[in-house]
Amino acid sequence: MAGRSLRVLGIDPGLTRCGFGVIDVRADRSATLVAVGVLRTAAELPIERRLLAIGDGLDALLAEHAPAAVAVERVFAQHNLRTVMGTAQAAGLVLERAARAGLPVASHTPSEVKAAVTGYGGADKRQVATMVQRILRLDTPPSPADAADALALALCHGWSSSVPAWGAADAVTPAQRAWRDAERHARAHRT
Amino acid sequence: MAGRSLRVLGIDPGLTRCGFGVIDVRADRSATLVAVGVLRTAAELPIERRLLAIGDGLDALLAEHAPAAVAVERVFAQHNLRTVMGTAQAAGLVLERAARAGLPVASHTPSEVKAAVTGYGGADKRQVATMVQRILRLDTPPSPADAADALALALCHGWSSSVPAWGAADAVTPAQRAWRDAERHARAHRT
Repeated sequence: MAGRSLRVLGIDPGLTRCGFGVIDVRADRSATLVAVGVLRTAAELPIERRLLAIGDGLDALLAEHAPAAVAVERVFAQHNLRTVMGTAQAAGLVLERAARAGLPVASHTPSEVKAAVTGYGGADKRQVATMVQRILRLDTPPSPADAADALALALCHGWSSSVPAWGAADAVTPAQRAWRDAERHARAHRT
Repeated sequence: MAGRSLRVLGIDPGLTRCGFGVIDVRADRSATLVAVGVLRTAAELPIERRLLAIGDGLDALLAEHAPAAVAVERVFAQHNLRTVMGTAQAAGLVLERAARAGLPVASHTPSEVKAAVTGYGGADKRQVATMVQRILRLDTPPSPADAADALALALCHGWSSSVPAWGAADAVTPAQRAWRDAERHARAHRT
């Protein structure tokens, strides 16, 4: 197992529930949970108070966990347009706060994230949560879905950032083998 | 002419050009220009650097001009969706920064703004700029359009916030009469 690790903060943006997950990813692709949760803001608050609360929450996460990289789910406009505007604004705050902290930040699509953790870009939320549970060796699947998605995003980003050697047959560690087995299992149970 | 005035910062949000206008509006609806301009960010910068620059620019405007209220143009999703996401994110930063500064912030639609300054919700950009020039007694119409729109937004907001007595016949001042004449003129030249 490698010594150095990359601490990644993943954010599944939203006004009502903004999922966050912090993990340490090592060069052998193994990862450990640092923190997970959801920033919530009340729907009856005016939008500016909600964005302020999310900005404060992001600042607190950056200060407490000092990630080396930030990943945020890419927002698409094809869904409910009213919801999407708020989600885009929450995502915009994540981008701005990461840049303010001098951190690299990247966006990943939901399909990329699902493919990274389950091997299948069309995986459902349960599969994603199950794989995140296995990869991070948690007792239960992370919940709510926004928190699981944020961890999956952090894993997707950590793996794509730091591990050029991953995939070479002679580099497979027991952790990687377990992950592949789990991935294969998830694929076999694809809905 | 009334003594007390309301200082309003209007923002026409955008990533490439974010128009701003600061005005002092008095109870008699007369208004004076304090500052106008455009925050620009280069299209080749990554989105997080652009949002960071806009956030810094907003902080500087709030610190320099100490407005009592902020108004931002409401973003709609019916236009180019790619552009709209960036515009929504810039508008989100305005909302967040205003809330952080403890200032009231409101959104107005383009139609509301046009109706407020020209009397016609379907006015074109030239009419808006011409009316803003007259109301603020400027030598030339403000340009670019983003800057004129930001001033129009600030006027719209200032008038809707502070002047319950406006409209009473016995309260009409020379400035108001000039504004009404100009409004009538603009209506007559409606395209």
